[in-house]
Formats: sequence, C-alpha cells, structure tokens
Amino acid sequence: MRTRAAVALAPGQPLEVMEVNLEGPKKGEVLVEIKATGLCHTDDFTRSGADPEGIFPCILGHEGAGVVVEVGEGVTTLKVGDHVIPLYTPECRQCPSCLSQKTNLCTSIRATQGQGLMPDGTTRFSMLDGTPIYHYMGCSTFANHTVLPEIALAKVREDAPFEKICYIGCGVTTGIGAVIKTAKVEIGATAVVFGLGGIGLNVLQGLKMAGADKIIGVDLNDGKEEMARHFGMTHFINPSKVDNVVQEIINLTKTPFDQIGGADYSFDCTGNVKVMRDALECTHRGWGQSIVIGVAPAGAEISTRPFQLVTGRVWKGSAFGGARGRTDVPTFVDWYMDGKIEIDPMITHILTLDEINHGFDLMHKGESIRAVVVY
Amino acid sequence: MRTRAAVALAPGQPLEVMEVNLEGPKKGEVLVEIKATGLCHTDDFTRSGADPEGIFPCILGHEGAGVVVEVGEGVTTLKVGDHVIPLYTPECRQCPSCLSQKTNLCTSIRATQGQGLMPDGTTRFSMLDGTPIYHYMGCSTFANHTVLPEIALAKVREDAPFEKICYIGCGVTTGIGAVIKTAKVEIGATAVVFGLGGIGLNVLQGLKMAGADKIIGVDLNDGKEEMARHFGMTHFINPSKVDNVVQEIINLTKTPFDQIGGADYSFDCTGNVKVMRDALECTHRGWGQSIVIGVAPAGAEISTRPFQLVTGRVWKGSAFGGARGRTDVPTFVDWYMDGKIEIDPMITHILTLDEINHGFDLMHKGESIRAVVVY
Repeated sequence: MRTRAAVALAPGQPLEVMEVNLEGPKKGEVLVEIKATGLCHTDDFTRSGADPEGIFPCILGHEGAGVVVEVGEGVTTLKVGDHVIPLYTPECRQCPSCLSQKTNLCTSIRATQGQGLMPDGTTRFSMLDGTPIYHYMGCSTFANHTVLPEIALAKVREDAPFEKICYIGCGVTTGIGAVIKTAKVEIGATAVVFGLGGIGLNVLQGLKMAGADKIIGVDLNDGKEEMARHFGMTHFINPSKVDNVVQEIINLTKTPFDQIGGADYSFDCTGNVKVMRDALECTHRGWGQSIVIGVAPAGAEISTRPFQLVTGRVWKGSAFGGARGRTDVPTFVDWYMDGKIEIDPMITHILTLDEINHGFDLMHKGESIRAVVVY
Repeated sequence: MRTRAAVALAPGQPLEVMEVNLEGPKKGEVLVEIKATGLCHTDDFTRSGADPEGIFPCILGHEGAGVVVEVGEGVTTLKVGDHVIPLYTPECRQCPSCLSQKTNLCTSIRATQGQGLMPDGTTRFSMLDGTPIYHYMGCSTFANHTVLPEIALAKVREDAPFEKICYIGCGVTTGIGAVIKTAKVEIGATAVVFGLGGIGLNVLQGLKMAGADKIIGVDLNDGKEEMARHFGMTHFINPSKVDNVVQEIINLTKTPFDQIGGADYSFDCTGNVKVMRDALECTHRGWGQSIVIGVAPAGAEISTRPFQLVTGRVWKGSAFGGARGRTDVPTFVDWYMDGKIEIDPMITHILTLDEINHGFDLMHKGESIRAVVVY
C-alpha cells in the first residue's frame, strides 16, 4: 500500500512529507493507522544529525496512537479495530529481561530495532523508487500508517482521544514512571526536578501523585514556573539567579530537625551531564537517589567524586519510566480518562502532517510543550 | 594518665612509638584499654600524607578491640570490664540519619570527628610537652589506651579473642556488610569482586553467605587466587592476562538462556576510579548494581556514559558495610564465634606495638592480608 509520511532524508534537513510504499504486516506484525503523534526532543536529536546511531532515510516519530488495520500471521493479542499505542520499548514477556521482573528493557528485538529494521531484518517502508526507508525506534509514527511487531503495541480503551493519549507513548510515561516505578518515591519525600519541559512536567505530576511534600523545580527559563506550579511544583529555582544551585537546594531542604539537608530524590530531565552531576550532589547524604532521564549528547560523560556514592547517594537511570509497555500503558490511559493525571494543558499545539517542520520550530523556540500532529 | 602509642608526627614519616598523656573520659565518654588493633590501608593512606584531610600529629588506628577501663559522667550503656569494639561510624540513635533508618552514617559527631577532636572540640591525647595530639577517625587504636564517645563503642561478648575480632571493627564488616546490607545480594546471584585484599576477601565470604552462584574475583596478582577460592571465589580473572576485563566478565556470565551477560552485582575494593568504571560497566543491563567500597585518591573522579545508568545499571557506595555499629557489630562477632564467618586465615601477622612500622612494610609488599598489633 501507499501512505503519507514525513521522511528524514538526510541528517540536519527538514522532514519531507511524501507518499511512500508500505508493505503489509509479516508474521507477528501489525499494520496500524496512526491517528496522532507527538513531536519529542529525541526525534529532533536524530533529525539534527547529533544522534550517532541515526540511520537515513528514515521515518521518525515514536509517540503515537492509532487503530489496528491488519494483523499478520500468528498475531493473537490484537485484532482489527483495536486502539493501540506503539511502544519503542516492547514487552515480549519471554526474554531474560522481561522474565527477570527487574527491568522493563525487553531485549527480544533490540538488535534489529537499533538498526532501523523489523525483527526479520528488513524494512516495510520504501521510497516510490524502491529505496528502503528505515524504521525509527521500532515505531515510525510520522507515517499515517506503520507496521510494528505485536509485542510493541499496547492495547488501550477505545474512548480515549488519540491526540491526547499519544503523549503516553513517551513523555507522560517517562516522567511519571521515573517517579513511581524507578525511584518509588514515598509520601512525604522531598524531590528536585531539573528541566521543566515535557518530561519534567510529568515528573512533577508523578511526584504530586506519589505524595511528595517539597517539590523543587529548576529551570533557566522563568517562563516555565507557572505551568510547573500547576503540575505540582512547590518551589522554583532559576540557577542563573543563585550562586550555587546545589547549595540552594541543600538549604531549602533543611528542617529544624535535619540540618544536613539535601533532596531525597532528584531527576535530571535536561540531558546535560553537568546538570546530572548537580542532580546527584544535591541529594541527601546517606540515602539520596538521583535518576537520570535525559538523553546526553554523543560521547558526553557524567562524573563525580566516588565519595558522593560512598556517603550513601545512589545514581540510577530510567528509560520509558521503568514501565512495561503492554502492561502499564493501558493503566496510564485509564488514569488520564479518570482524571488522575492531566495531559491536556501540555498539548499546546495541534498540527497537520504538512506542518510538522513548524512543530520542530516551536520546540526550538521553547514555545510548545508538546506539539501533536493529527492525521 | 600516660599510655604508649604509635604517633604519626608528620605526613610521610614512620610512626614513632612513645609515651603520651591521655586525659580521662569526659561526659559521655569512655576510656578503653586497646588489646589488639589491625593495620588498614586507610591508616596508611593518612600516614603517607596522601589524605588531604590528615591532621598531624595524630594517633592513627581504627580497627581495634579492648576493654572498658573507666566511664565518664552520664554513660549508661557500658560499664568497667565490658569488651568493646571502637566504631569510626558511631550510632547515636537520635540524629536525623540514625532515625531515618535509611543509612548507617550517623551524623551526630561528624564535624568534630573529621577534625581529629572529641565531640567537645578538644583532644584527650597530648605529647609529654603538652602539644595536643589529634584523634583519628574517632578511634586512635594505635594507642594502648584511648578515649571514645559512648556512641562509638559496640559492646561484644567476652569470650571472643581480641586479636581476631578487632578486624570486625573495619575490614570484615565493610566487606560482608556491603554484600548483605548495601547490595542485599540474593541467592543465585552472580557477582564480581575487584581487588582481593583484606576487604575483597570479606566481600567474597559475604557473597558465599548470601548464596551467590557465580563469584568472580579480579586481581592483578595471581598469588591472591588460592586464598580467594578459600573464601568463596568460583572464577578468577587476572586483568593483565585478558584483552578486556569487562567483556570477559560479560562472557563469563552469559547463560544458554541469557545471552546478554553481565554480573548482577559488582564490588570495587581497589579505590582505583578506572576500576570503578569497569565495575559498573560489567554489570547486567537492566538491573546490575555496582557498589563502590574502595577509597579513591584525593580529587579522583569516577565517570561513565549516562547511557549505562539509563539502561538500568545502578551506582552505589558503601561505608562500613552499611552496618549500624552498636546494633550489628555484636552480631558479626557472634557469627565469627559460631563459625559462620571466618577471620583466622586473614590475620597473617601478629606484631608488637614496637613492630608497627614493619606491619606497614608487609602491607606495602603485599605480604600480609591483615597484620594485627597485640598490646
């Protein structure tokens, strides 16, 4: 079949919206009509050429929602008409990682997914001249139709609006999951969030859900404060306006009883390795945990004195919020429909596929939280 | 009173055994006759001048055992004749750290202890000419008599031999505790220990107690293999004899089912920051935990790509094995007396106080595991 897609032909170029060929689903695969897709910084990271693992031409996009159009041989858990959210972190429930019950990082199709291929080592997309087009994060939601492995699709309720729940495919789950699944924040905790963009806001609402007492947000842009307070932030620090953001956080978390200070938990949502260090070092001696969420530039490294760890701080990371996609994403959709979590204020722009490059402009200018393309 | 002590008069010098003045215990303090003390790398680190926080003249030593000779005003939990092990990590049970139940790093007397002083800001030791001599790690067990705060003494059973249980005051507890308290290793786990000296051997016996299946030891010295196998090591790697120690460990931990490989837990007992990085990176994607135990040189920093954390590895540290001294040290002594843990083969040399510098020579030559001074 043919479908319309925004194709990344080469690194550093705007996307080109065009007709492409799409083969039907092979064994264990599913054809999905994408109804809406968010634009995430990770898409832009690869589009820009900064991602050393980027392969071109490819169809980007990994934060979508849609409807099953056709199922391949052997598919048993999905049928035509099901509403689904694509999962860049699949959940096969059979690999050593899934069965460990200690990680959400399913490894069953990792090798081919990283090469922009379906599990059988080929692509479903091609240019009209036959040139193969690579998949991206196993999703490629910047195409109106796409093919995914069955294990990379979460079935969700049918009354949920596509243009909102697509955000659960990445940002919402990444932020809230980091709090409730990776860090397991407890009621009464103090926490700091570095970077108050699309992920940071979701970390904030996760902290609010988890019952954290003091929720400190850190961002260079004062314009982020209002929305962040809406999502649960109780204290705001602009690091350009204080001498030392680590010391500021330590002071802010001291209590009459505890004059040591430091946050119980911190979350880096910036991808900046210097900020990741601050995020570790502002946590409480003895038990502070710092969770790296942001994606760092190629080759960048985090550093600290090992004394920071020996005196009880823990350095962790979180990918897709520690969530198991097929198991947890439907619950996140329920939480949205039940009003337990909020998404609407974060979807700041609705665009058509033809306007997708404008969406990246909005991202670069810091004008959008999430721009969503509706097909 | 006067007592004999090995005094570190200046950085980089041998210790000098001499008579010193010792004031009696003040409020909340206890006078202890030290019966035996181990010589630890940390003592040598400070003696050598490499420790930027070293203060001279001081009386080193922090791995002792002895008998209470006199108690100061207000001391309620100890009496004359009690057998005790000094604690460089005290346990006041009243500070925010102790009450958190999330760390063993009591902070009640941290500030003065770090300055070589008793909690009231003075020293009990002085030269015969009246010059104050600083305490070390709150213990100063290289003196035949020493004064400690009540909260820095663990009361232990009276039938346990001083020249063996002194080692529980640091090395034994640090190694075993890192496994069972910090990492909480579970039955069937795979683990790697970097550095098979006095701490590493105790990590090995902790792993054996915890029921780990595959226990890999890494050391540049083949001579360490035999003793390490005695303490539970199942596989030995000399990193100078393989291309890449991280890849070697990953290969060694693959199973027919799990072709990802990597250790569930790793422990750095070297203090070398490059080794600490290897220790993190050889752990299993998704859930591997690496525990820093070794003390790094001043200013040295650990580094890695944040991707290592985002893909599920956890970087932690452990001080005094995560043990609460007054609560846990008596249990470790029981375990030794019950034959549940072994100490005797690690005490390779018994010396007199006059021979203490010879003990450091043995350490430098790698000929001793633990040299113990018996008074």
